[in-house]
Amino acid sequence: MKKLINNPDNVIADALKGIAASDKDVRVDFENRVIYRATPKDGGKVAIISGGGSGHEPMHGGFVGTGMLDAACAGEVFTSPTPDQMLAATTTVDNGAGVLHIVKNYTGDVMNFEMAAELAADAGIEVATVVVADDVAVQDSLYTAGRRGVGTTVLLEKIVGAAAEEGGDLASIQALAQKVADNGRSMGMALTSCTVPSAGKPTFDLPENEMEIGIGIHGEPGRHREPIGDAHSVAEQLVQPILADLDFTGAPVIAMLNGMGGTPLIELYVMYAEVIALLEDAGVKVERNLVGNYITSLEMAGCSLTLLRADDEMIRLWDAPVQSAGLRWGL
Amino acid sequence: MKKLINNPDNVIADALKGIAASDKDVRVDFENRVIYRATPKDGGKVAIISGGGSGHEPMHGGFVGTGMLDAACAGEVFTSPTPDQMLAATTTVDNGAGVLHIVKNYTGDVMNFEMAAELAADAGIEVATVVVADDVAVQDSLYTAGRRGVGTTVLLEKIVGAAAEEGGDLASIQALAQKVADNGRSMGMALTSCTVPSAGKPTFDLPENEMEIGIGIHGEPGRHREPIGDAHSVAEQLVQPILADLDFTGAPVIAMLNGMGGTPLIELYVMYAEVIALLEDAGVKVERNLVGNYITSLEMAGCSLTLLRADDEMIRLWDAPVQSAGLRWGL
Repeated sequence: MKKLINNPDNVIADALKGIAASDKDVRVDFENRVIYRATPKDGGKVAIISGGGSGHEPMHGGFVGTGMLDAACAGEVFTSPTPDQMLAATTTVDNGAGVLHIVKNYTGDVMNFEMAAELAADAGIEVATVVVADDVAVQDSLYTAGRRGVGTTVLLEKIVGAAAEEGGDLASIQALAQKVADNGRSMGMALTSCTVPSAGKPTFDLPENEMEIGIGIHGEPGRHREPIGDAHSVAEQLVQPILADLDFTGAPVIAMLNGMGGTPLIELYVMYAEVIALLEDAGVKVERNLVGNYITSLEMAGCSLTLLRADDEMIRLWDAPVQSAGLRWGL
Repeated sequence: MKKLINNPDNVIADALKGIAASDKDVRVDFENRVIYRATPKDGGKVAIISGGGSGHEPMHGGFVGTGMLDAACAGEVFTSPTPDQMLAATTTVDNGAGVLHIVKNYTGDVMNFEMAAELAADAGIEVATVVVADDVAVQDSLYTAGRRGVGTTVLLEKIVGAAAEEGGDLASIQALAQKVADNGRSMGMALTSCTVPSAGKPTFDLPENEMEIGIGIHGEPGRHREPIGDAHSVAEQLVQPILADLDFTGAPVIAMLNGMGGTPLIELYVMYAEVIALLEDAGVKVERNLVGNYITSLEMAGCSLTLLRADDEMIRLWDAPVQSAGLRWGL
């Protein structure tokens, strides 16, 4: 296993030390593995938290900061955080206006966030929840009933984070979050597997000449395997299922071409050129974009495409300042 | 070869299309492979350009933007751009106050930038040059006479870019650049090789249980190979040669823990925690830092550490706003 780690069982604890040491704008609750803002939001504003298994960095901890998340809790690699962690994040950031939980649709995450919401309610904290289930690849997978939650989560955290900064109430924030979740679609592919440190061997085997189309962010099987194609044909296999699932014409679109972790940026730009050409041919107008590593799967090589059918309000919120380790502009 | 590309011979051209499509703040001269700002600096200010072989993204093209570079030219993968490209970049951005060339110390780059400077002088453009040679690993390598130029280049482009934005003259900008170059040191290591697309096979072989300490950003051999150690021991092997080469106590230090491209962010944070603990023990005070992929070697797994012995003026310029695809804050 070729990894820059100490004890495979302590990777998250060790990484949290590095985050605390490098980012002066966040604090880390090491016991609960919660990353939260060093300077809390002004009182009376809705707080936004998310969380999930680790190994997808910068998501979610890297998105804690002004204009995005108030806190994130980190589970073990590819494993949901516990309800206690989620409750700790919730109580840390609540300032009376309620807390939105952003949950990716995996069975463990959904169950644990539900339990955390109940515990928070018992403690007098109002919680609303949005579940992201945007992966068009497969209906059910190893980890989830229904579609998996993937790249739309990043766009949602940015947009909803901006809205919360402006002071919307919990009901309106939740409605916006649901609208983003309903209008985002993603599709991913992999050239290689990745290795969970505590497992010590690749999650799956992918022969030297093959790629997997429709893969999940934990290496869950996708739609099929086939010989590695060129960037153009890979782009077609990402774009077509997304456009077949939702009409992206007639609205401003936010596109994210995301790297899975082990694919160099130069290849992501090659892919983006192919994707944008296909979208233009299909009459889809991309108004904003991200190209880079935002929701990763450790060192997996591959990429995913996320499209969000936005509206003027979402674009305005997208453009609002954000200052987090993983995403920042305009501050 | 597991890559998201079309024709291996067209990777740079294809990637430039993606950069042009994704970043509204830059323009691409496809013929000369020059990336330059969509909105030029105000007249009368020194322009800053850099360039080098591709495969190190986001460096250099990703650092074109307000507060950093005015233009960058992209060579083939791991191959110097031609003097013509450098001249095109120089003439594109000059507005009468002269142009600084930031050159990494590789034989081809140095020679071609010298030739471009002469051609620019013939055309009446004043050019000054700074050569970065900050790699403490080896004195000479396959590509260079003297030390290789690596991570300090990123910090230099940020600091000098900020100074140029403020309106310093060419002599003062060059002096600042030289001061940064003189006070930066780097050391890298790799867990895996990388594959140049046109070669189609890994640049070198590194057995499953070995790592290479002191590697260059083109896979040039380093100091030695040894069995993979834990993050703590790797950190020691990066920190010690740097501290042995220059005294970093008694000054504010800017640290960059850089990923080589294929190493996930979670491991970089583990490494940063180890590095910062060692530096604290050594009495080195890190005032600013970067953790992420800034000067990469395609999909190579590994990392490098760069320390800059800064001063208050460099810290002030470091904090100045920057808006580029690869590095941005404060705007």
